[in-house]
Amino acid sequence: MAGLTAAVAFAKDNGDRFVEELKELIRIPSVSTDPERVGDTRRAAQFVADELARIGMENVRLIETSTEPSATGPGRQGHPLVYADWLKLPGKPTVLCYGHYDVQPAEPLEEWLSPPFEPTVRDGNLYARGAVDDKGQMWMHVKALEAMMVAGGGTLPVNVRVIVEGEEEVGGEGIAAFVREHGDQLKADVALVSDTEMFAPELPTLCVGLRGMIYTEIEVKGSRTDLHSGMYGGAAPNAFVGLAQLIAKLKDEDGRILIPGIYDKVQRPTDAELKAWKALPFDEEEYREAEVGSVALTGEAGFSVLERTWARPTLDVHGMPGGFIGAGAKTVIPAKATAKVSLRLVPDMTPAETFGLLRDYVATIVPKGCTAEVRMIHSGDPIVVSTDNRFVAAATEAMQTVFRKDTVFVRGGGSIPIVGDFVRELGIPTVMMGFGLPDDNLHAPNEKFNLSNFHRGIESIVRWMGLVGA
Amino acid sequence: MAGLTAAVAFAKDNGDRFVEELKELIRIPSVSTDPERVGDTRRAAQFVADELARIGMENVRLIETSTEPSATGPGRQGHPLVYADWLKLPGKPTVLCYGHYDVQPAEPLEEWLSPPFEPTVRDGNLYARGAVDDKGQMWMHVKALEAMMVAGGGTLPVNVRVIVEGEEEVGGEGIAAFVREHGDQLKADVALVSDTEMFAPELPTLCVGLRGMIYTEIEVKGSRTDLHSGMYGGAAPNAFVGLAQLIAKLKDEDGRILIPGIYDKVQRPTDAELKAWKALPFDEEEYREAEVGSVALTGEAGFSVLERTWARPTLDVHGMPGGFIGAGAKTVIPAKATAKVSLRLVPDMTPAETFGLLRDYVATIVPKGCTAEVRMIHSGDPIVVSTDNRFVAAATEAMQTVFRKDTVFVRGGGSIPIVGDFVRELGIPTVMMGFGLPDDNLHAPNEKFNLSNFHRGIESIVRWMGLVGA
Repeated sequence: MAGLTAAVAFAKDNGDRFVEELKELIRIPSVSTDPERVGDTRRAAQFVADELARIGMENVRLIETSTEPSATGPGRQGHPLVYADWLKLPGKPTVLCYGHYDVQPAEPLEEWLSPPFEPTVRDGNLYARGAVDDKGQMWMHVKALEAMMVAGGGTLPVNVRVIVEGEEEVGGEGIAAFVREHGDQLKADVALVSDTEMFAPELPTLCVGLRGMIYTEIEVKGSRTDLHSGMYGGAAPNAFVGLAQLIAKLKDEDGRILIPGIYDKVQRPTDAELKAWKALPFDEEEYREAEVGSVALTGEAGFSVLERTWARPTLDVHGMPGGFIGAGAKTVIPAKATAKVSLRLVPDMTPAETFGLLRDYVATIVPKGCTAEVRMIHSGDPIVVSTDNRFVAAATEAMQTVFRKDTVFVRGGGSIPIVGDFVRELGIPTVMMGFGLPDDNLHAPNEKFNLSNFHRGIESIVRWMGLVGA
Repeated sequence: MAGLTAAVAFAKDNGDRFVEELKELIRIPSVSTDPERVGDTRRAAQFVADELARIGMENVRLIETSTEPSATGPGRQGHPLVYADWLKLPGKPTVLCYGHYDVQPAEPLEEWLSPPFEPTVRDGNLYARGAVDDKGQMWMHVKALEAMMVAGGGTLPVNVRVIVEGEEEVGGEGIAAFVREHGDQLKADVALVSDTEMFAPELPTLCVGLRGMIYTEIEVKGSRTDLHSGMYGGAAPNAFVGLAQLIAKLKDEDGRILIPGIYDKVQRPTDAELKAWKALPFDEEEYREAEVGSVALTGEAGFSVLERTWARPTLDVHGMPGGFIGAGAKTVIPAKATAKVSLRLVPDMTPAETFGLLRDYVATIVPKGCTAEVRMIHSGDPIVVSTDNRFVAAATEAMQTVFRKDTVFVRGGGSIPIVGDFVRELGIPTVMMGFGLPDDNLHAPNEKFNLSNFHRGIESIVRWMGLVGA
C-alpha cells in the first residue's frame, strides 16, 4: 500500500489531537440504559457521524432504531445507529468496522478517583467511563480511517463500511434488527470489532470466541402488600428470604450451576485450544490478588480459570431491587423482591433453550408461600469464529509488526451479540482485534484505556487494512 | 370522678375538631429515619408541645436527645422528646402517658391510594402515614387530657406525666438514654401506652406481651471492586450469590431459624395463656387471604399463627442494598452486598446474646471467596407484663364500659422497646391499651385509623384515668 508509511506517520504526528477529540466524545455521558440520557446518547452519535463526514467518509447518516414491545416493556424509540461508507474500489474487499458509542452507567460514583465523564490522564492511562469500552477503541477505527484518507489523498486501501451502535450496553436490539432486516446495506467481506482486550500488556491478542448471555429478572412475591415484620413475622412469607433460598438453589458454593440440563450442550474447546491456553502467561494467584481482589477464587472444580471464564456457562446476580434499602432500619416484610440474574453461554448453548431451562427449574424451587416469575431482559448467542482465513492472518501480521511479538488467540468471557449476528445474518467472519488490558475496569469505577495501546491500536488497524487491501 | 360524664360529653362534642387537629399533625412528615426530615420531625414535636401547653399541662418542654457514637455511625443529635406534667394531687397515683410523634417512611409511594401525608377520610377511616402508628393513638391521650381538664375546671382525676418521643421508628435510643439517666423525672405508678391494636373489630384488647428485636446489617464482600460479569463470571465470587447462600442458611423454608442455640432461652407461654389464645376469634384462612394475601402462610411447624407471631422468635430480611438496581441490565459482579436482617425476640431472649449467636453463626457459613460482617443497628428487649394489678383491672373495666364486651388479653408481635425500659428502669407496669385494627397497614402503604376507634379510645382513656384516680 502506497501511503502506509505516510498514514502511520500522520497518526503518530496527530496522536495528541486524537486523544483530545476522544476526550470530547467521552465527556458526553451517553449511558444508553438511562432514560434521562437519551439526549446525550444521541449527541454522542452525532459527534461520531460529524467526524466520519469530516474525514471524508460518504453516505454518513444516523439510522433510527426502535424496539418491539416485549414482556419487559412497551416498544420504544431506540438510540440511533451511525452509518458511513467509502466504496470506491470495486474488486477490493470490503471491511465492516463496528463499534459502539454508548457506555455503561458510572455508578457507584463515589468510587471514582476522577469524575467518570471528565477524562483524566494518569500514568499514561486515560481514565473515564467509556475510555476503552468502547469509545476509545471505536475512535481508533475512525482515526485509522482519517490517517489513511489523508495519506492516500482521499482514498482508502480497502472499501469500508462503518456501523456504530448506541445500545451495546443494553442488549443491542436496534442493530440486531437492522442487520436482520437490512443486511444488504452492510454487505462486506469481513467485520472488524475492537471491543475486546489483550491477554496481557504488550501481548498482541486476537479474540476468537465470545460467550453469549441471557439477562433475566427473577421476581418473587410473598404477601399482597408490604407488612410489618413485628406483626406478621412468623406467619407471612418473606419475599427476600424466598428469593435468597431460590438463588441458593441456582448455583452451589463451588460455582456449579444447579439448573438441570444446563451443561448438556456445552461444547468442549479443542485440545489444541486448551493446550494454547495453558501456554498463556497466566498466574492464578496474581490474577486473584491484582484483578479480583477476593480472599479466594470461585468456580467449577476441575476447570482452569481461563476455561471457567471463556468456555463454561456461568451464573451471576447483579443486584436485588425491592424492599427497604435506605439508611437505618425499616421493619417491613417486602411484598416482592427481584433479582437481576444473568447466565453466560458458550457454544452450543442457545439463549432460548437456556432461558427455558432456567424458567422451568425456577418453577420447581419456588419457596413455600411465594410465587416466582422469570423475565428475559435481553440475550445474545455465544460464538466461536474461524481462525482459518486471510483476514485473521493479516491481523496477526499487522499486530506482530506493531508489537514485535507473536499474536495469541484467546476467547473472551463477555458477550458482543452483534458478532453472532454478523456470522448468522451476513455470513462474514469477524476479526476481534482489541487493545484493552485486563485491569481496565470495564463496567466498573475507574475504567481506563492505556494511551500507548490506543496509538498502537490505530497503527495496527492501518497496517491490517493495508494488508487486506494489498 | 365528678367530671367524668362531662369529660365524655366534651370529647363527643369536640370529636370532629380533634380529628381536624390530628390531620394537621399528620401533614407534618416526621419520618425519623430520613435525615432530610429532621426539621419536619422537630416541627411535629413542637406541635404536640404547643397543644399540651394549650390544654393546661405544665412544665411543657422539648428535651434534646443525642445518640452515642457506635459501629453504625458517629454520634448525632437526636429528635427531641416532648415532656409535660400535671402533678397537683398528692396521694393520688401518677400516670405516665407515652406515645411517639415520628412515623415510618412512606415508600413505596406509588402504592398509596391517597398521598401519605395528606390525611383522607374514606369509609370512616383516616388514611395517612402515622394515622394509627402512632400520631392518632398519641393524640387520643392528648385529647382525653383536654376533655378531663375542661370538665374538671382545670384539674385532672390523677397526676399525669406525658412523654412523647420522636425516634420510636429508629430504635428509640434517645428516650432509652433519658429513662436510664433521668428516670426520676418520669417517676410514676403506671405507664399508659397506646401503640398496639385490638385483636378484632369491636373487641377491646389489652396487650400484655411484646417481642423484642435486633435489627442488623449483614454485609458480604467478594471482589475488591465491581467486576464485569462476562470477563470474571466463573472465577470471581459474587457477593449477592454469596449473601443469598448465607441467608438460605439462616432460616429454612418452613420458617425455622437455623442459628444454633436460638431457641434455647425461649420461654413457653403459660397453659392459661395458650388456652385463652385458642379461644380468640381467629380464622387462619381468612387471615391468610385478607391480611397476608399470600398463596400460603409460612412459619414453624407445630405452632399456631398466634404462637408464631407472639411467642416465637422470627427472622426477616427487609431489603438487600447494593449492586445494580436500576431499570434494565448492567452486567456487573458487585463487590459487596448487604442484607437488612432482623430477628424478633421473645422472653427470655436478650438482644446481646441473640446478636452474638447470629454473628458467631454467620462466621461459620461465609461462602467461599467471600467475607462477611454483621452489624447491630438497634435492638429492644422482649417483655411480658403482669396482668395482676389494679391498673389492668381498671383498663379492663373502662374498655368494657365503652365497647360493651369483655376485654381480651393478647400479646403483640412487634416491639415497643420503651415498655421494657419502663419495667427495668422505672419499676412500673405498663397498660397497653391500643385501638388499632389488624388491617390498619402499619408500616405499609395505605395506613389507616378507624375513626370510631379513635373516639372510643379517647373515652376509654378518660374512663380509665377516672378509675385510677377514684
